[in-house]
Amino acid sequence: MLLRWQQVEGAGITYPEGFVASGVRCGLKTQGEDLALLVSESASTVAGVFTTNRVQAACVQYSRRVVKNGSARAILVNAGNANACNGEQGDRDNRTLAEWVSRRLHLPPDAVMTASTGIIGHLLPMEKLEAGIEDAVAALDREGDTDALLARAIMTTDTFPKYGAFEADSDQWVAPIRFGGMCKGSGMIAPNMATMLAFVTTDARLPAALLQEAMNRAVAVSFNSVTVDGDTSTNDMCLIMASGMGEGEISRPGTAFEDFVDALTRLCVGLAKEVARDGEGATKLVEIVVRGAATEAGAHRIAKTIAESPLVKTALFGNDPNWGRLLMAAGRAGVPFDPNTIDVRIGDHLVCSQGGSIEFDRDGAHDYLTGREVQIVLDLNMGDEVATVWTCDYSYDYIKINAEYHT
Amino acid sequence: MLLRWQQVEGAGITYPEGFVASGVRCGLKTQGEDLALLVSESASTVAGVFTTNRVQAACVQYSRRVVKNGSARAILVNAGNANACNGEQGDRDNRTLAEWVSRRLHLPPDAVMTASTGIIGHLLPMEKLEAGIEDAVAALDREGDTDALLARAIMTTDTFPKYGAFEADSDQWVAPIRFGGMCKGSGMIAPNMATMLAFVTTDARLPAALLQEAMNRAVAVSFNSVTVDGDTSTNDMCLIMASGMGEGEISRPGTAFEDFVDALTRLCVGLAKEVARDGEGATKLVEIVVRGAATEAGAHRIAKTIAESPLVKTALFGNDPNWGRLLMAAGRAGVPFDPNTIDVRIGDHLVCSQGGSIEFDRDGAHDYLTGREVQIVLDLNMGDEVATVWTCDYSYDYIKINAEYHT
Repeated sequence: MLLRWQQVEGAGITYPEGFVASGVRCGLKTQGEDLALLVSESASTVAGVFTTNRVQAACVQYSRRVVKNGSARAILVNAGNANACNGEQGDRDNRTLAEWVSRRLHLPPDAVMTASTGIIGHLLPMEKLEAGIEDAVAALDREGDTDALLARAIMTTDTFPKYGAFEADSDQWVAPIRFGGMCKGSGMIAPNMATMLAFVTTDARLPAALLQEAMNRAVAVSFNSVTVDGDTSTNDMCLIMASGMGEGEISRPGTAFEDFVDALTRLCVGLAKEVARDGEGATKLVEIVVRGAATEAGAHRIAKTIAESPLVKTALFGNDPNWGRLLMAAGRAGVPFDPNTIDVRIGDHLVCSQGGSIEFDRDGAHDYLTGREVQIVLDLNMGDEVATVWTCDYSYDYIKINAEYHT
Repeated sequence: MLLRWQQVEGAGITYPEGFVASGVRCGLKTQGEDLALLVSESASTVAGVFTTNRVQAACVQYSRRVVKNGSARAILVNAGNANACNGEQGDRDNRTLAEWVSRRLHLPPDAVMTASTGIIGHLLPMEKLEAGIEDAVAALDREGDTDALLARAIMTTDTFPKYGAFEADSDQWVAPIRFGGMCKGSGMIAPNMATMLAFVTTDARLPAALLQEAMNRAVAVSFNSVTVDGDTSTNDMCLIMASGMGEGEISRPGTAFEDFVDALTRLCVGLAKEVARDGEGATKLVEIVVRGAATEAGAHRIAKTIAESPLVKTALFGNDPNWGRLLMAAGRAGVPFDPNTIDVRIGDHLVCSQGGSIEFDRDGAHDYLTGREVQIVLDLNMGDEVATVWTCDYSYDYIKINAEYHT
């Protein structure tokens, strides 16, 4: 079991041993840093999870192939241009970016992964990127402020950078393991499509297959349990690099590996919640818990349907303890349950019992919903399975951000 | 084939032979008529389509049972209270409404269907309804203004009444057949849940099984192809009564029946489009056509995913020809297709060709999108199947209507 889980204030993706990084401006966004480079000093084991959208950007198809090799040295991330729907020219440009990085860093050409986020259907301005890569290579560093700069360089409509670092220890490990991470995303939004990108590092040593399994399991209950608007980007990806430069080593499935998954999951859940908190126009972070379900998949589907219901999200913006909308959304999730056994809690307020109306403190529930973080729990009273999904409310600013942007 | 299809201005659900109706106020809504009664002078054949939500109002469960008998005499509709999530008391109250109507009209107790729309989780004010039913029975009529009054009496947040009447003729029929209909719905919205209710009449004579098949097919491409916000009410239903009082008769499947389905479908599509046009806060009616698909179900699923994408709907409000969001939404529909063969048209403007960016008249496309009715066509260029879905845009008023209401 995990003995210790200690956050390191101000640190991020370069906190684990073996990583340097830089964030620079190359002019893709109207202002601020827009190019991030993360380099592993050794050959890191890598794993990744990619968008399930049928329309996939060049970087998604390319980085998926690199991940299949199980090992890589660097990730180049640009914000401001998604390089999606650009046909063969987009594929060539993406490969060129990776080649430029590999040549300047004297790496094998297939050791560089790429990720892009921003406007769709516009070719990359390659001269700006060539100069930017030169600057980024020159600026590689492991200073305290690098991680914040890096997290800012991958932002699009995000209103704050999202990153964190932890040192964890387990009674099953030979040594503590460090974890770092950053992500971006606040919906599928302006300039044309924003994207959920997440990058995680660790200094543990473990085989690629185990790392991929750990990533899959952590993503399922973190990034894949966040929904802002139900829209899935063409560019979504989550990559992890394990440098093996620390003393921690996980060589096989078992309790040590389970603790690694546990630690990684905690990091990812923390980052994922920041994405929901920063949803476009969000006034609050909303945690939807469905418990007492027959299956975890069913619980997840109900929670996600509630979290994506426009009527639920507008009621949350209005601080309205409208349990009828919660039941309506649960009912259309396509999961069998008995409507007459559901209990609904908004914070500590039981607002619906056995599927029906009960007396409750309406003003108290309203006041609770005005908070910056709120929790809603549906208990189906059918089984023991639970799922949690994070989302935000729909405000006037959601419409403003998404309608007033013009391609 | 249909030879004639003639709209009758100002007429509605009582236009076919054999129906009388009334719309009265009984005090469930803050103002206006809120109780509608439709009575068939003969025993009508009936069919119905009901919400697939797991949480179903008392009237849905009750009316479904009446429909199973295949024959009924009346429909009582109240607006302002959904009588949903009210447990056994809700069931008892619903039965009492039907009994009051049957007693006053000297009908068998199981000849009355009920439909409710409005706030959830509040018991029906039965004294008001008892007086209202007495008024409604006394007011039964077939005057010209009855149909408009009736359509207003079933409204909740609708901004205009939705009704129509047609006389159709086919070379396969012995006589012309009349159709009348009304519906309500502008999303799943305040007071707590609004609902899509639709009621259709015809004076043709046909067996219940054929009527049900006709209704199923018409609903699939009309009411089930409309989406305002993807939310499905606990109270949705669509009922049809065929009085058999005209000279038209359809006794078996075949060309005469196909023409009946065609005529019924035209009526339902017309009514369904009014629901999308009146979506909460809508500034325009949007028709999404997906063609060139391998299967009709796939085309429908892609069209519906696009129509429900918050990012598409906000871009439409902003009059932005943002084809990237259309492709993104299509790609997450879970239907296989080749992203490199899609063409996208906004009105007459080809805005995306073979899945990529092309030059187009951006100002022209923007101006087109400012219209009150717009069409978007995605051609997958894979097969011959087509589906059409109607929706509306998301405006500031959508948020306002849904967030500022308090239960």
